[in-house]
Amino acid sequence: MVLKIGVIGTGAIGQDHIRRITNKLSGGKIVAVTDVNKEQAKAIVETQNLDAKIYDDGHELIKAEEVDAVVVTSWGPTHEEFVLAAIEVGKPVFCEKPLAITAEGCKKIVEAEIATGKSLVQVGYMRRYDTGYRALKNVIESGKIGEPLIVHCAHRNPTVPDTYTGDMAIVDTFIHEIDVLRWLLNDDYVSVQIVAPRKTSNALEHLQDPLIVLLETKQGIRINAEIFVNCQYGYDIQCQVVGETGIANLPEPSSVVLRSEAKLSTEILVDWKDRFIDSYDTELQDWINSTLKGEVNGPTAWDGYVAAVTSDACLEAKESGNIVQISLEKRPEFYNKNLVVVEKI
Amino acid sequence: MVLKIGVIGTGAIGQDHIRRITNKLSGGKIVAVTDVNKEQAKAIVETQNLDAKIYDDGHELIKAEEVDAVVVTSWGPTHEEFVLAAIEVGKPVFCEKPLAITAEGCKKIVEAEIATGKSLVQVGYMRRYDTGYRALKNVIESGKIGEPLIVHCAHRNPTVPDTYTGDMAIVDTFIHEIDVLRWLLNDDYVSVQIVAPRKTSNALEHLQDPLIVLLETKQGIRINAEIFVNCQYGYDIQCQVVGETGIANLPEPSSVVLRSEAKLSTEILVDWKDRFIDSYDTELQDWINSTLKGEVNGPTAWDGYVAAVTSDACLEAKESGNIVQISLEKRPEFYNKNLVVVEKI
Amino acid sequence: MVLKIGVIGTGAIGQDHIRRITNKLSGGKIVAVTDVNKEQAKAIVETQNLDAKIYDDGHELIKAEEVDAVVVTSWGPTHEEFVLAAIEVGKPVFCEKPLAITAEGCKKIVEAEIATGKSLVQVGYMRRYDTGYRALKNVIESGKIGEPLIVHCAHRNPTVPDTYTGDMAIVDTFIHEIDVLRWLLNDDYVSVQIVAPRKTSNALEHLQDPLIVLLETKQGIRINAEIFVNCQYGYDIQCQVVGETGIANLPEPSSVVLRSEAKLSTEILVDWKDRFIDSYDTELQDWINSTLKGEVNGPTAWDGYVAAVTSDACLEAKESGNIVQISLEKRPEFYNKNLVVVEKI
Amino acid sequence: MVLKIGVIGTGAIGQDHIRRITNKLSGGKIVAVTDVNKEQAKAIVETQNLDAKIYDDGHELIKAEEVDAVVVTSWGPTHEEFVLAAIEVGKPVFCEKPLAITAEGCKKIVEAEIATGKSLVQVGYMRRYDTGYRALKNVIESGKIGEPLIVHCAHRNPTVPDTYTGDMAIVDTFIHEIDVLRWLLNDDYVSVQIVAPRKTSNALEHLQDPLIVLLETKQGIRINAEIFVNCQYGYDIQCQVVGETGIANLPEPSSVVLRSEAKLSTEILVDWKDRFIDSYDTELQDWINSTLKGEVNGPTAWDGYVAAVTSDACLEAKESGNIVQISLEKRPEFYNKNLVVVEKI
Repeated sequence: MVLKIGVIGTGAIGQDHIRRITNKLSGGKIVAVTDVNKEQAKAIVETQNLDAKIYDDGHELIKAEEVDAVVVTSWGPTHEEFVLAAIEVGKPVFCEKPLAITAEGCKKIVEAEIATGKSLVQVGYMRRYDTGYRALKNVIESGKIGEPLIVHCAHRNPTVPDTYTGDMAIVDTFIHEIDVLRWLLNDDYVSVQIVAPRKTSNALEHLQDPLIVLLETKQGIRINAEIFVNCQYGYDIQCQVVGETGIANLPEPSSVVLRSEAKLSTEILVDWKDRFIDSYDTELQDWINSTLKGEVNGPTAWDGYVAAVTSDACLEAKESGNIVQISLEKRPEFYNKNLVVVEKI
Repeated sequence: MVLKIGVIGTGAIGQDHIRRITNKLSGGKIVAVTDVNKEQAKAIVETQNLDAKIYDDGHELIKAEEVDAVVVTSWGPTHEEFVLAAIEVGKPVFCEKPLAITAEGCKKIVEAEIATGKSLVQVGYMRRYDTGYRALKNVIESGKIGEPLIVHCAHRNPTVPDTYTGDMAIVDTFIHEIDVLRWLLNDDYVSVQIVAPRKTSNALEHLQDPLIVLLETKQGIRINAEIFVNCQYGYDIQCQVVGETGIANLPEPSSVVLRSEAKLSTEILVDWKDRFIDSYDTELQDWINSTLKGEVNGPTAWDGYVAAVTSDACLEAKESGNIVQISLEKRPEFYNKNLVVVEKI
Repeated sequence: MVLKIGVIGTGAIGQDHIRRITNKLSGGKIVAVTDVNKEQAKAIVETQNLDAKIYDDGHELIKAEEVDAVVVTSWGPTHEEFVLAAIEVGKPVFCEKPLAITAEGCKKIVEAEIATGKSLVQVGYMRRYDTGYRALKNVIESGKIGEPLIVHCAHRNPTVPDTYTGDMAIVDTFIHEIDVLRWLLNDDYVSVQIVAPRKTSNALEHLQDPLIVLLETKQGIRINAEIFVNCQYGYDIQCQVVGETGIANLPEPSSVVLRSEAKLSTEILVDWKDRFIDSYDTELQDWINSTLKGEVNGPTAWDGYVAAVTSDACLEAKESGNIVQISLEKRPEFYNKNLVVVEKI
Repeated sequence: MVLKIGVIGTGAIGQDHIRRITNKLSGGKIVAVTDVNKEQAKAIVETQNLDAKIYDDGHELIKAEEVDAVVVTSWGPTHEEFVLAAIEVGKPVFCEKPLAITAEGCKKIVEAEIATGKSLVQVGYMRRYDTGYRALKNVIESGKIGEPLIVHCAHRNPTVPDTYTGDMAIVDTFIHEIDVLRWLLNDDYVSVQIVAPRKTSNALEHLQDPLIVLLETKQGIRINAEIFVNCQYGYDIQCQVVGETGIANLPEPSSVVLRSEAKLSTEILVDWKDRFIDSYDTELQDWINSTLKGEVNGPTAWDGYVAAVTSDACLEAKESGNIVQISLEKRPEFYNKNLVVVEKI
């Protein structure tokens, strides 16, 4: 059984997904593509030697008979309309983050999906598919460290381009922690506070960097997260969960241990693409497999909505310096089935 | 383009390969299977819902028109005849170790392959596809540690079954080091000596365990390898390369770091299947991809021959306690194209 | 040259200091002891075979002609009067923490010392003498990580006795971080906030445990410190300094690396006495050596005063949940000479 | 009680011992010194402000009434006569390695000591006092890894001076492993084989470097030891004991963990003096303390003899390439009392 996939948006991430579905994963086939830049769409069809039709427009592609399922990798502000269109025709859709650029947009999608009665939407938060985070979640759920009380974490990039704005520290960078930590803890956030340490001299003038985000969850777990996007030394994702009886750390990426020049060292990655490259493979393979079974295992539209609400609160906390409450609607019964304990993929 | 594969032998490893080709990898399709136990062959076709014909015999399967390429995962002593048969009809063949149970058998295969003028045979030494060994080879070839001088390594299993004989320490266990170390060092062996340390009380009476193997290479590199198959604590593969200016260690498998019960710890695997499971995926995917291009990237028939000769010398050294010379024929020009420097897969 | 020392208070820590000065360190001699429990004082003189006079009272001992310098290890509330008495007669005094139980008491001592014009007082904050903290300070001052921006730290005890009160988390436990972090950073605190995570079920009912303390320094460095005194798994002191270009961690105590029972592990200490035992030796040896030279190298009366003020603010922050300002008087010129960069002892 | 010490030989190591006994340790006092270079002896007395008499000759110093015990740190070939002289007058003597430059010389000392019926001689093998080796011995003796079967170890120096000869790899470098490993294992050696790997291009022409030494013990434990004195990257002492149920490694020296320039690293020492500096302190303090009690806790004359015999066998094995038997006389009853299990100092 093969899942026939249409891809909307053939930019960098769209091309990556096309390549992995075509050359590395099992059970999926790209049958349709579209992009605002039609030449780019044509180019990927040719270089990958795809047996795929090129559409003028995402809405056409979504409706096309040969398309079983849709991957949305277009420009962020267009996600909402394409996801809604896929839901309308009852086709499964994998949408890169953000699900929509506003919480209301996300909520509209949630309501539309519930109205169909079918699980159709998965959002592209790939960290849930990282071997390390999965191992960490397994340890937590094994009871080895008791109930989680505190999370210390850090998201560090070596540098960011000049176009990187202060809000991007939340909506592009920290958004990954927002999603993965509530999955890790099976919990939701109730408040957030952001404090600004002494600024690094390596950040552009407009940018407060680093930041410390203090999140509180429903269960009272306190998360303190460092965001530091000009740390110079590497791309470094840290996560330590302090439990009642023990402490578990996200594994460091595996690396040769070197004794050289008076140092005992392992490598720290510098490119974020290397850090989670395997997670993208696992994520898409899992999406193909579960879609073929009519299920959604990964982050749902509801998760996309929660990320949007939390991210809005973080932006307000960053601006005001105050403790900002995070108010979510009640989780619809519809999404409870997705609250699965992590399993070995 | 899809590689249509016939599988000879549907025991444990055969079933594993069928499952990974069917559910996880891209570009391959199981179209034919056979086994001495026909019921077992039928069962895997059914449970995996394969669109595959069941043959009475490996030779028939090899000749079948719908079969592009052959995977040999039958009982070891039958490998030689099936590989030769595949060569005879000019079909690519992936053969699990051993290529043949004697060095002469391997040599016959080498000669048959050369006679066809086409690279057809790959042997299933999966460690060359392990991310860790590849990273280690990259470090060596980067020049970061200078020329290699010494290798310290260890192959440790927690326990072995009662059926494990003394020779299996070489032909089943150490055979992996024999293959991977010469690939790692781009070198061949010239002599071997084996010494027997104090025996562990956890080994069966007939079994000398542990052993220390001392290999010498053409370049004068000295390898000292510990084989310890009743080490109790885990499945642990160690490899340290001492170079002129630095030292590089095979990475430990990635693991959550735990602080618990007065210990700072990471997990050591206990099951060998977990240690190299990803290597099997990479190996088979690489075999499918290169076979579709008419190439062999992985261990060749020549590598199978060298492993057989070296393994014979090790058995003699174990028996006699003497330093045993390892004499290889000259490497045929035909196999020089396979001497590729490691690349990122 | 030998420093003739009188010890006031022969409880646990007093006895320890007597033993180390007598049996392990160079240049000091116990010539006088006193304690409210005279029998205890006698006992230590006998068991250690000391050539020391037993005094009825600390004030007598301080004035005794044969006493060159005084060690105060009596009950906390008595420290102030004995230190003031030693200053009055111009004798150097090593006082275990706290210097005085109120900030005003500390200030009185500061003023008395300045009035003599001589450096006489050292406070027993031994962490500044820990090899690990010294190495960490060396790295910071080497410029290897650039200017410090954030400190993540943790003070974890396996358990605390029933007599441990909520305030002791600050005045007994966190007080060590208060002193050592400002020494490490060459900085002072300006504000503090304390948040209470989900409480561990292993703490007594009256005790909020763990706590997170957020300190801000004059330079804007943000410290987030976890205090967790029922962490079960060990006595674990963590300190990570995030700088502009790199990150440095306090070393873990050295330990045998064990491969056993499917774990690769090192030991975590469980008893705080083991963690800093060497620091006490170094601290007292340094005090003897510098006292013989008429200097004070270690924590001064001013440091004792700052610790008291900071600790008061922490208590208020814990009570109120508010951000509390920390207002210090201007550092007297007199103490600037003690601002030495760390040197190898 | 103070041990009045005379020092014969005021070169580098002699001066170090004088300084540590005078400024750092407890219970010892330098009362007499001598050196073939009398000016050097005078200089150390002056710079250290010693209350010590300068003797023309070691034999005079040994006999001097004010001298309780002797430290021999003169030129190696003179050790034997001074140790014998000290035994003759019944004075305890601490002798730096070697005890004598021949096995016969060592044996004469052993016999002389036994004849007096008093334990008088300690040899300066300081590794037995290293915290790391002691922790390793504790683990072995705890039974945590079962009976030892194999030891993998390495002695690596960054470089050696031009004056370093091939024999020095044994008598100056490996001699430390010879002593410490039999102490660690409570065992003796029965044979040795030495193999020469590919030579590093960083060694002088006359020097075969690295070497691999294969030792066998009475219990059948196999030691494979790498000696590599031009390893460039640091001074690195490794020791791994493989036991029946687990494996224990000598701890790495404690170091700040640094994240910087795409590396997660700790420091490797480059100067051997830094590696064992604390061991010298512990060793001398222990010698002072036990000498005051009339005991010898450390390496005895017998240990010096065994080291000499083993070292001779190693030289022969290096020269011949053969397996050389190591034949010791029976251990005299006299030395059995020194076979103490390691205790916390």
